[in-house]
Amino acid sequence: TINGQRLNDTLHQTCEFGAAHRWGPKSTETGMARLALTDTDKQVRDWFVAEMKALGCEVKVDTMGNIFAIRAGENEGPPTAMGSHLDTQPTGGRYDGILGVMAAVEAMRTLHESGRKTKYPVAAIDWTNEEGARFPKSMQASSVWAGDITLEDAHALADVTDDKVTTLSELQRIGYAGDVPCSWEANPLGAHFEIHIEQGPVLENASQRVGIVRGGQAYKWFEITIRGRDSHAGTTPMDCRADPMLTAAHFIVAASSIARAHGGLCTNGIFTAKPGSVNTIPNEVRFSLDIRHVEDAALAAIEAEIRARTAEITKTGYKVECVIEWKPLYANPAIVFHPDCVSAVRAAALGNVDEKDTREIISGAGHDSCCTSKRVPTGMIFIPSKDGLSHNPEEYSTPEDCALGAQVLLDAVLLYDSQ
Amino acid sequence: TINGQRLNDTLHQTCEFGAAHRWGPKSTETGMARLALTDTDKQVRDWFVAEMKALGCEVKVDTMGNIFAIRAGENEGPPTAMGSHLDTQPTGGRYDGILGVMAAVEAMRTLHESGRKTKYPVAAIDWTNEEGARFPKSMQASSVWAGDITLEDAHALADVTDDKVTTLSELQRIGYAGDVPCSWEANPLGAHFEIHIEQGPVLENASQRVGIVRGGQAYKWFEITIRGRDSHAGTTPMDCRADPMLTAAHFIVAASSIARAHGGLCTNGIFTAKPGSVNTIPNEVRFSLDIRHVEDAALAAIEAEIRARTAEITKTGYKVECVIEWKPLYANPAIVFHPDCVSAVRAAALGNVDEKDTREIISGAGHDSCCTSKRVPTGMIFIPSKDGLSHNPEEYSTPEDCALGAQVLLDAVLLYDSQ
Ligand SMILES: NC(=O)NCCC(=O)O
Ligand SMILES: NC(=O)NCCC(=O)O
Repeated sequence: TINGQRLNDTLHQTCEFGAAHRWGPKSTETGMARLALTDTDKQVRDWFVAEMKALGCEVKVDTMGNIFAIRAGENEGPPTAMGSHLDTQPTGGRYDGILGVMAAVEAMRTLHESGRKTKYPVAAIDWTNEEGARFPKSMQASSVWAGDITLEDAHALADVTDDKVTTLSELQRIGYAGDVPCSWEANPLGAHFEIHIEQGPVLENASQRVGIVRGGQAYKWFEITIRGRDSHAGTTPMDCRADPMLTAAHFIVAASSIARAHGGLCTNGIFTAKPGSVNTIPNEVRFSLDIRHVEDAALAAIEAEIRARTAEITKTGYKVECVIEWKPLYANPAIVFHPDCVSAVRAAALGNVDEKDTREIISGAGHDSCCTSKRVPTGMIFIPSKDGLSHNPEEYSTPEDCALGAQVLLDAVLLYDSQ
Repeated sequence: TINGQRLNDTLHQTCEFGAAHRWGPKSTETGMARLALTDTDKQVRDWFVAEMKALGCEVKVDTMGNIFAIRAGENEGPPTAMGSHLDTQPTGGRYDGILGVMAAVEAMRTLHESGRKTKYPVAAIDWTNEEGARFPKSMQASSVWAGDITLEDAHALADVTDDKVTTLSELQRIGYAGDVPCSWEANPLGAHFEIHIEQGPVLENASQRVGIVRGGQAYKWFEITIRGRDSHAGTTPMDCRADPMLTAAHFIVAASSIARAHGGLCTNGIFTAKPGSVNTIPNEVRFSLDIRHVEDAALAAIEAEIRARTAEITKTGYKVECVIEWKPLYANPAIVFHPDCVSAVRAAALGNVDEKDTREIISGAGHDSCCTSKRVPTGMIFIPSKDGLSHNPEEYSTPEDCALGAQVLLDAVLLYDSQ
């Protein structure tokens, strides 16, 4: 049995690395700003490595900075892994990703204390830049591991705020450019389990405690650039403008309503305009587009409709027109988890709570498990999020739910290992 | 008679301080990025001061960094001034403001060479931060001179990209925080004349060469902040969002169509979003709003209608709503120039070209002359802008039109002085 108090204490202790955005008087009432590969990410990584070594684990760091802490089993072979991520959003909370790694640490501590032998090795993993907040590709490092994107492309990916800072330069700067190949073939896993907060309102609204995750929705990210002509705000008639700001506003309104009509989601989180002067019509605006749907076909329809509608928007009727450029940043197809892992999660859940307290659920967010599931059997456990809120400093899950989730994680891993 | 070749040569020579955005192969085929109080602004100021001293002028610098170069007349008394500005937009051209100061320099050189005595002193002025691009208040320093805004507020105004850099700190850094009071009472002028490019298409479309400016349109600047709730792009249903980005897009579309319906103008040149992550709905977006109309009442109607319509837009129907905050940055009422100055400009123009080559015109842009006109008789001369383009690196006026404008400026000053 895991130690729920220790789990929650450890989670909040390590949140000292990167705590930010205080919203209440208690010491734990802050959010987090621990962006991938920053100094505070290095601090929590160092803590994780030291902690796992103290439990007798072998620790490997791969070329994307993913950290694998491996506890030997009775037999050699690819480990059954418990993984998630320690990086956060710029205005993130204390649970997204962090709970998954802390639950893996707690599971390892429990195995260690009980002297429990597993058939095969068990691993705890911290995956690099799951959020995609600093380097704009979510699950960046688990995507490389899964062979979805190349190591070169991932290494070259720059900080969203500074072209000159790349993933590789930051991995090197903080000392986490390891030499183990980042590859499911060269550094394989037997299976991957992950506990995560739901980040949405479904479990809370149904008063249920454990989500047995069946898969994840499809999503795509783009960087949209609209170019027009900079000219004077006071002397340029409305009919003689190629205004990329106004075109972008039409784009965002249209994209949102198209996604909504299809039952999907649309978000524009980043936006910049050049040259940035009150009385100059911009010559270029750039913004991110994140579209999602549970079905691949519907997502494709949303994208096609936005492309068609916005191609019309650029037609200013004036001799100078705006031009829209779509740069794909990321694409994650709809994911279906492995039936053996889903069964292990279900059995583990039912060992801890009544069936009515559980539900099968599709993840709205991407997770490292979406990447691992392309290569090895994968399963996930969700626990409720207060107000369905995530990517927000006030993100919250109860200590009891965190402890329950960690227990289900360990039980699912042991069940899978024993089969 | 002024020397048109020398005027144009000097203009392009001094554009070496701050040249940027090459658009053609010739040495003069670049735009400018000489933002107020930057190092390149200091360079051109130093050049202006040295040049005016070499012509025997007394040079005074006031507490806003405005530079007054004064050539003595037969009598003591407030000088008849020729003023404009040497700062530019970030993607500005070689004529906006610059031509006005260079024409004043050429007029001074002409007076000097001919030994011409004027009844009263004559001044050439460089006004600080006319553009409002770096510090977001246009005609910032001529507004202080006119008593429209306080010296304290103007000194405290920060760089649009960096809160910690203020107008005062930059004046001090480049050595242009002078000790002459910035005040029309303590440092008076007799009159103010300014030649400027039209920056719009009216003269060019009418094939006319000289605009006799009757006044300027009204305009207002605001910084709009919309606050919502940051949450997850993948797990937050469209109906459970308070998305300030989407609200801002609706705002911009609505404001543009309202301004258009009234025959006015609307521009959003600056836009930032926080925290700036692809998969997080922003918690705050901030953007500039510039609205204009030739009539004060119509401008007020545009503002009122935008306020009313956008107050509706924030009603998400969800328990969390967006909040819009309007921070006024600047307001410039419609301006009517002094009949004596308008007459002097007309007479000077008709001394150089046929009546059919001139027209009376209202300025779409604000100018330092709009501020001086509140305190002393003021007049302006416009020359055509190619394609009506300004606040753009390709801004262009012919050498012939620049020379003609400078001649009209000098003639108007001499006419006014002799009355
Ligand atoms: N779980 C999570 O927040 N992942 C980030 C990737 C996404 O945008 O869905
Ligand atoms: N002339 C000019 O570009 N002035 C800047 C002030 C304005 O925005 O009109």
